[in-house]
Amino acid sequence: MNIISIKFSNKKLYFTLFNMDDESVIVTGVFERIGMPNSYYTISYNEEKIKEEIAFNDCFDVARILLDKLISLEFISSKDDIEGIGYFIFHGKDQFYKSVFLKENDICQLESFQDFIPSFMQDNISGIKAFQEVFFNIPIIGVFDTAFYASMSEDTYLYSVPRRWYTDYGVRKYGFYGIVHQYIQNCVKDLLNRDSFKLISCYIDSEDVSISAIEDGKCIDTSMGFSLSSGSMMGTSCGNIEPSIIPYIMEKEGKNASEVLDDLNYNSGLLGVSGVTNDIESIMTLCEEGSQDAILAKNKFVRQIVDYIAQYYVLLGGVDVIVFTGKAFEKLGSLRREICEKLFSLGIKINLDANNMPQRGVKISAEDSSVLVFVISAREDLMVARDTLKVLNG
Amino acid sequence: MNIISIKFSNKKLYFTLFNMDDESVIVTGVFERIGMPNSYYTISYNEEKIKEEIAFNDCFDVARILLDKLISLEFISSKDDIEGIGYFIFHGKDQFYKSVFLKENDICQLESFQDFIPSFMQDNISGIKAFQEVFFNIPIIGVFDTAFYASMSEDTYLYSVPRRWYTDYGVRKYGFYGIVHQYIQNCVKDLLNRDSFKLISCYIDSEDVSISAIEDGKCIDTSMGFSLSSGSMMGTSCGNIEPSIIPYIMEKEGKNASEVLDDLNYNSGLLGVSGVTNDIESIMTLCEEGSQDAILAKNKFVRQIVDYIAQYYVLLGGVDVIVFTGKAFEKLGSLRREICEKLFSLGIKINLDANNMPQRGVKISAEDSSVLVFVISAREDLMVARDTLKVLNG
Repeated sequence: MNIISIKFSNKKLYFTLFNMDDESVIVTGVFERIGMPNSYYTISYNEEKIKEEIAFNDCFDVARILLDKLISLEFISSKDDIEGIGYFIFHGKDQFYKSVFLKENDICQLESFQDFIPSFMQDNISGIKAFQEVFFNIPIIGVFDTAFYASMSEDTYLYSVPRRWYTDYGVRKYGFYGIVHQYIQNCVKDLLNRDSFKLISCYIDSEDVSISAIEDGKCIDTSMGFSLSSGSMMGTSCGNIEPSIIPYIMEKEGKNASEVLDDLNYNSGLLGVSGVTNDIESIMTLCEEGSQDAILAKNKFVRQIVDYIAQYYVLLGGVDVIVFTGKAFEKLGSLRREICEKLFSLGIKINLDANNMPQRGVKISAEDSSVLVFVISAREDLMVARDTLKVLNG
Repeated sequence: MNIISIKFSNKKLYFTLFNMDDESVIVTGVFERIGMPNSYYTISYNEEKIKEEIAFNDCFDVARILLDKLISLEFISSKDDIEGIGYFIFHGKDQFYKSVFLKENDICQLESFQDFIPSFMQDNISGIKAFQEVFFNIPIIGVFDTAFYASMSEDTYLYSVPRRWYTDYGVRKYGFYGIVHQYIQNCVKDLLNRDSFKLISCYIDSEDVSISAIEDGKCIDTSMGFSLSSGSMMGTSCGNIEPSIIPYIMEKEGKNASEVLDDLNYNSGLLGVSGVTNDIESIMTLCEEGSQDAILAKNKFVRQIVDYIAQYYVLLGGVDVIVFTGKAFEKLGSLRREICEKLFSLGIKINLDANNMPQRGVKISAEDSSVLVFVISAREDLMVARDTLKVLNG
């Protein structure tokens, strides 16, 4: 059964066509700079890689070109060879708590969520409409990045703000990167060969940090909240902070609230502290070269991740497994090592040899560590395809 | 040697006259509603308590009435029987890191700090001027509430925001209630009869929460930051939160940033969640009566304190002692119990009998607890007097 997994984010559309009989990747790729000059796509399959510069103004163009390429490169003979489209959706608010076959009224409902992370949701919805038209008659399954957080309790998801902010305007902790954490939860279940365990799943790509506490398959808490710029400090975002700083800076710099918020979202985090880069990999390299500003940024970044792990360790009442995932964590052994070393008082010990050469799903904790520590590749696309299959199979 | 300790905060002036030969309290009291209708003072000594309604428009009036009363009640025969005035100062910025004999140029410098917690500093300075005049020739020693935090490292006190916000405008973590935590540190040193230990000191009065991590007498980190409305949620303040909520609410409610900040500082925290009260003692009573809103507020409040203890446990690499202090913690055994029970995964165990009837400085942890837990009365006034004595003795 062929299922295609789609994620449209930040002017890029990612796709992966799976043969779900064995979850093998038939072809994967990304269309970049959609609606911008110098747009291009890259496609990978077997050992092949194709890159082509080609104009595409919008998602409709992208969907058409994608379908043409899949046919012309003979992955499929017609669109009907695809049995379902799994479509990544950023926000399900508290209305979509599981993956669904998207119908017209669902899309109207999604449009009403545009206040939440506006640019993301606009892209999201325009992509759905394009795939509905071009892949006419192929079922599109919406897979919601916030759905994994449905299990959080009221005292976790509510903020300590006036209650009407939730009842009237939906201000609460939603959580993001839930699809990644759900995938990690599934992997750990397979690795341990049991259903019941306590897990802290830590995700970093180059920009974002998302950390979730999971017990017996259910998410108990997560670092991100109402928006993506929340929780731990990130590439350019400060994460959670005390609000009094905002009016103080507004007055000092003669800015309005939205300008100061832009500073907190786009000029803070690793970039704000280091003054040089928002990329944790570059920061780690600069640290090795002795840059004091980079060391400061790295120390703050590590500290905040360690803080979340400490909190979640106590929240869960001890933990069985910690997983590091996402591009940055999969690559940066020195970052994993530094975090684990700071957790020594919880009995966590790293195996330095294993940490230097991690294989996916292989543990990097020492034999006498109180907690298993794994490095696992984040496979959001596969999780979307799995959920899509589940919905199609009813 | 007689030393008087003064704190002027929120229209109230607290004083305690100590005989520092044995640190005994000669007389203590508070002037309330300064500059407001129905102002009054209360004075306590031995078993006596005096309350009198009397008009005082400002600190000069208060200082004069205080001196008159001390003489007429025969605690002193003239102002010259007082050898020093220890004056509580809210903010020393990064310029006053120890207690000092306040000279004219120090007061000018303090006036330049008015941007930081403005109302507090204005009160502070007007009080100093009144005592300088009325207690002419008696040395006034400024004791700074932020000074205990001088030992925090750069990667702790800097926020993950643009660096110029610190260099140009002084945005950093300063910390508050340092005098209380310093006092607790001294008490634990006496109780353990050693200098070297790791301590988490947790303070709650009816409104504020301040938690500090202390190693070998030095503060490593603390929950409060740039302003008093930071860190853990409090009576009416949300504590740290994600900044994106502010412009979202500005738009939804047609408010400006400062109005939304007022909501976060004065209509949030326990009050915002419970919808009823900002007082943790009332919340605990309502919980016993089964109020679901109070239980929600209490759960969030407990969770955030537990989160800080968990973070600081790992930051310190394990901990020897946890202290609960401040009026609310000294009174509310059920709150202490709930927090300790949530810390079981760190090996912390409470002795329920001891917790029900704590004596000052007596431990409430069980014999087999991995960490000693004490309840200690916060004696800010005594710590101010001790520091004053130290400065006077050179």
